[in-house]
Amino acid sequence: MDKVGKYLFMSEPFHCDFSKRLFMGHLGNHMLNAADFHSSERGFGMTYLNPIHKTWVLSRLAIEMEEMPEQYTRFYVETWVESAMRYFTNRNFRVVGEDGTIYGYGRSVWAMIDTGTRQPQDIMAVRDGEIVNWIETEKECPMEKGSRVRMSGNAELVRTIDTHYNDVDVNGHINSVKYIEHVLDLFSLDNYRENRIGRFEIAYVAESYYGDRLSFFREETADGEYCVRIVKTNPENLKEVEVCRSKIVFVKK
Amino acid sequence: MDKVGKYLFMSEPFHCDFSKRLFMGHLGNHMLNAADFHSSERGFGMTYLNPIHKTWVLSRLAIEMEEMPEQYTRFYVETWVESAMRYFTNRNFRVVGEDGTIYGYGRSVWAMIDTGTRQPQDIMAVRDGEIVNWIETEKECPMEKGSRVRMSGNAELVRTIDTHYNDVDVNGHINSVKYIEHVLDLFSLDNYRENRIGRFEIAYVAESYYGDRLSFFREETADGEYCVRIVKTNPENLKEVEVCRSKIVFVKK
Repeated sequence: MDKVGKYLFMSEPFHCDFSKRLFMGHLGNHMLNAADFHSSERGFGMTYLNPIHKTWVLSRLAIEMEEMPEQYTRFYVETWVESAMRYFTNRNFRVVGEDGTIYGYGRSVWAMIDTGTRQPQDIMAVRDGEIVNWIETEKECPMEKGSRVRMSGNAELVRTIDTHYNDVDVNGHINSVKYIEHVLDLFSLDNYRENRIGRFEIAYVAESYYGDRLSFFREETADGEYCVRIVKTNPENLKEVEVCRSKIVFVKK
Repeated sequence: MDKVGKYLFMSEPFHCDFSKRLFMGHLGNHMLNAADFHSSERGFGMTYLNPIHKTWVLSRLAIEMEEMPEQYTRFYVETWVESAMRYFTNRNFRVVGEDGTIYGYGRSVWAMIDTGTRQPQDIMAVRDGEIVNWIETEKECPMEKGSRVRMSGNAELVRTIDTHYNDVDVNGHINSVKYIEHVLDLFSLDNYRENRIGRFEIAYVAESYYGDRLSFFREETADGEYCVRIVKTNPENLKEVEVCRSKIVFVKK
């Protein structure tokens, strides 16, 4: 089996925005699916891990796009493991059209945890570190790694939302893709008429749950560059905890 | 070509709820995709209609499920035209597993409009009414048709939301699937722990747009049966217009 997995998707009409191009949230979903298929087919996916009480947790996702696939376009998400350490793996993505058009790239960082204790697990202890046999170092991913999203204390509270049934994933947490959608919903349609998303980055810091109230703090850190911090408020004890940080770089169309 | 189209989908992990079964909104999306593929392959889809300034508009959708496909399940959405009149067509759906398990059925009503004037168009005037050659009357769809959702004046305002970037579809309207999600978000996770959706029904009355504020009025019309009316408020003139009516029948798990 090839070290690089390649999965076909389509830019479905109801997954496209007003400009008839795929929403970033749906692209993120396709990448997470590709990661899941790739790891399962190679013996280190959820199907192997869950019965031994372990699971992958997405820690960071960064996506850089030249353009988004248009409505009805078929495209591949290629994915491979660039490196694996004791507690983290780096997984890359390339989004490429059937005709060879390169739409963009992605980088992600994953941790492995115990599903009972939620503690980090030694990835090299799983199947004698067999994951290293799948590491692909030749394939290029010409985009910057995700860096720590730096924010000053000046970020402004721009929205607070309650979490609902459709926000909750199979693990009972707020769905990773929904955070992407909620962050991108902080910007007006006029903004998306004039700009496209050049780079999107999100770091998952803590998990949030149904009933948590999410507050979004936003700061413009450079021209067209925004950082967003999501803070959850527990409805019972009103404790506030940071759950995500995101950075969005808009590019003039 | 067969009168019945059959399209393979998968119950993707991020499209499943906390019970690891497909969300109703995503099933609705698969049905709309199946309808689109089926009509395009047979010459009366958007690809043919849009260049002649016409389009299909979904008027009603009703779905009855025995169960929802579990995470990772592959299933088919079958679809066919049951009848076609001058201004409306009835299109049915059957959701069936690769192993033959019947998950449920759907019924939908579509109108054709002129994309410029937004006026109803005579379906029989398109390609000399060729759509009638695709009518399939033998295949069963053992569920009730959508009926007018009757509500008293006692429905209670249960939520008001603003519409955002991710709510807007390729036509600049609020996405038909998003209404389904917003309606189902009116019910608590506890409700979904105890009940599954036996029947879901939505009638699209008027279009709403980015910036419209949506108010949800809900009424329990029988034990486990709820009707929801969605009203849009134009942010400029504060005019209120009904945009959708929905009925949800919950069944004890």
